[in-house]
Amino acid sequence: MGERSSDQGTTVLTEAQRVDWLRLIRADNVGPRTFRSLINHFGSARAALERLPELARRGGAARAGRIPSEDEARREIEGGRRLGVELVAPGEPGYPPRLATIDDAPPLLGVHALPDALALMQRPMIAIVGSRNASGAGLKFAGLLAGDLGASGFVVISGLARGIDQAAHRASLGSGTVAVLAGGHDKIYPAEHEDLLLDIIEARGAAISEMPLGHVPRGKDFPRRNRLISGAAVGVVVIEAAYRSGSLITARRAADQGREVFAVPGSPLDPRAAGTNDLIKQGATLITCAADIIQAVAPILDRPIELPGREPDHPPPASDPDPSDRSRIVNLLGPSPVGIDDLIRLSGIAPAVVRTVLLELELAGRLERHGGGLVSLL
Amino acid sequence: MGERSSDQGTTVLTEAQRVDWLRLIRADNVGPRTFRSLINHFGSARAALERLPELARRGGAARAGRIPSEDEARREIEGGRRLGVELVAPGEPGYPPRLATIDDAPPLLGVHALPDALALMQRPMIAIVGSRNASGAGLKFAGLLAGDLGASGFVVISGLARGIDQAAHRASLGSGTVAVLAGGHDKIYPAEHEDLLLDIIEARGAAISEMPLGHVPRGKDFPRRNRLISGAAVGVVVIEAAYRSGSLITARRAADQGREVFAVPGSPLDPRAAGTNDLIKQGATLITCAADIIQAVAPILDRPIELPGREPDHPPPASDPDPSDRSRIVNLLGPSPVGIDDLIRLSGIAPAVVRTVLLELELAGRLERHGGGLVSLL
Repeated sequence: MGERSSDQGTTVLTEAQRVDWLRLIRADNVGPRTFRSLINHFGSARAALERLPELARRGGAARAGRIPSEDEARREIEGGRRLGVELVAPGEPGYPPRLATIDDAPPLLGVHALPDALALMQRPMIAIVGSRNASGAGLKFAGLLAGDLGASGFVVISGLARGIDQAAHRASLGSGTVAVLAGGHDKIYPAEHEDLLLDIIEARGAAISEMPLGHVPRGKDFPRRNRLISGAAVGVVVIEAAYRSGSLITARRAADQGREVFAVPGSPLDPRAAGTNDLIKQGATLITCAADIIQAVAPILDRPIELPGREPDHPPPASDPDPSDRSRIVNLLGPSPVGIDDLIRLSGIAPAVVRTVLLELELAGRLERHGGGLVSLL
Repeated sequence: MGERSSDQGTTVLTEAQRVDWLRLIRADNVGPRTFRSLINHFGSARAALERLPELARRGGAARAGRIPSEDEARREIEGGRRLGVELVAPGEPGYPPRLATIDDAPPLLGVHALPDALALMQRPMIAIVGSRNASGAGLKFAGLLAGDLGASGFVVISGLARGIDQAAHRASLGSGTVAVLAGGHDKIYPAEHEDLLLDIIEARGAAISEMPLGHVPRGKDFPRRNRLISGAAVGVVVIEAAYRSGSLITARRAADQGREVFAVPGSPLDPRAAGTNDLIKQGATLITCAADIIQAVAPILDRPIELPGREPDHPPPASDPDPSDRSRIVNLLGPSPVGIDDLIRLSGIAPAVVRTVLLELELAGRLERHGGGLVSLL
């Protein structure tokens, strides 16, 4: 069983391009969405890198943002390879095809796997998430479910955490499992799961991360990481989650990404089931066995994976934005997200100019991009 | 909080009419649907009683069906009154208004309650059903839910069985509870729940039954009884039910009656939750607290209860059906249910004649009426 993608395996970066891409995504104030805007705007990472300092200065940056040198980028690539980690772009072998479809897909993903294990990433994935302090029943069910999904050809993807994640990874070692890390590949959290990670790699599973080597995961890295768990999967199963738990955030993001959300029911008297029961009330699919999931995702697997429609190319405007245009756009922005299309309409300024000003603000660390073409001032 | 009905309290039978109604509903081969057909056809129970033997004979009955005498009917009415049981018709005080809306509503319902407790029947009811051998958690939840529903003004209606039913009745003694019996009012099942029944009556609750005094409930009486539990209620809550359990039949009938179906989730590893989880998969509403139920039924309670559209009167045909017409209709019938409208169309025989032939067959014990205007040959 392999995932079908509309342009699977077509993108292969040259080594020089990979260095440029890595420098750009590791530059200050450049996240996956900004990266995509810059590539769309300037046509290549190299062209974007050249313009970056000037754009940030015009956007009002107090001082120039840091851009890693070519040497630094090469050292990161080589340091990864020594650990068995390849930095791959969407469309390259090892990049989960479905992950490429989310609008903040990492431009480069660090994939830790044995060389002959990369085909795993082409298979459909189901995410299993849930409480770190799960009940015995929850752990048992996670294991049963992961085993049955694996036997049906699905890769089980999870977050290497204690509790449900661990049970799901362990039960799918033989059939294929992927751990998504919140930190760098050399900073495993929790540290006691380094053994589990080694078992996953040896069993021809994989670990993936968008973070550089040496990055120790902080609190905000986990929700950010969670979008990769759901993004790579056809659907996300939540097993045991209390109210306001991290698994529910993953479920909400999964729904935003258009992924199926499955939840395992539990007694109303069990607080560990409060979150999953609530998900079902809000429209998640109640599941009690792997067959429920397989039946629900079958029609999705029958369709090829559609990459998001490429934004039309926006060549940079003939001249730099006029300062009065820039202040008009800044005045229309505030802390509440507003649509870029609305900004263009309300300002009466040419779309190419508006987009350039937004890029400048973003690179100056003054703008946040949300999903759905929304932006806000920081 | 009182239920609003479009013609609440308008029907009051004279004592003579009550005797006729009781003789007719207790006659052989006359169930609630046949009763309604006969009243529609002949205009009154008295007129129907006079024609009954002849109709049955024409329908092919080997021997005349039994019809209780006036004396017998009077004795049943008086025997009930000595126990505190009144036989009431739809629209009379004590008959739950919503129960009158199902298409096989009992023409006479035996209501056991203290005289000043009948107003209870005008309040909205929620049915709570579930396993006889429920878990401790299930019993606890049933009690919590029944208590909370009672505190919000709902009457809790159930089947006086062991397990969930008992817990629901006990927890709603103070706020109002109704037990629906499968046998006569003097044949309580299980016998050990006679005390619970007395407690319900003393607490100004009620017990209802459509069966005559002395009727010992048999297996098939329980599903038949279950339609009254759901029929009288706005919605039915199923707490803990295994696969293929009686509670699931009640839930299916409730859905057919247009009642809301609520189910309490449980762990996939708990076989006592298999039935309720399955109900949710099939579209029942997952609930974890009384507020979930109250929110779901609020819009229904805001609408007046609509009694089913009365069938147009079908005066008996001018002459008895022609034997060739009768055999043509019998030939069109078989064990699979067929619509009466289709019979009329396919046979080309006048509707009044078709209906008369069907009544004859029914009274001869050869025809079964299903919901939705469907009939089949036995």
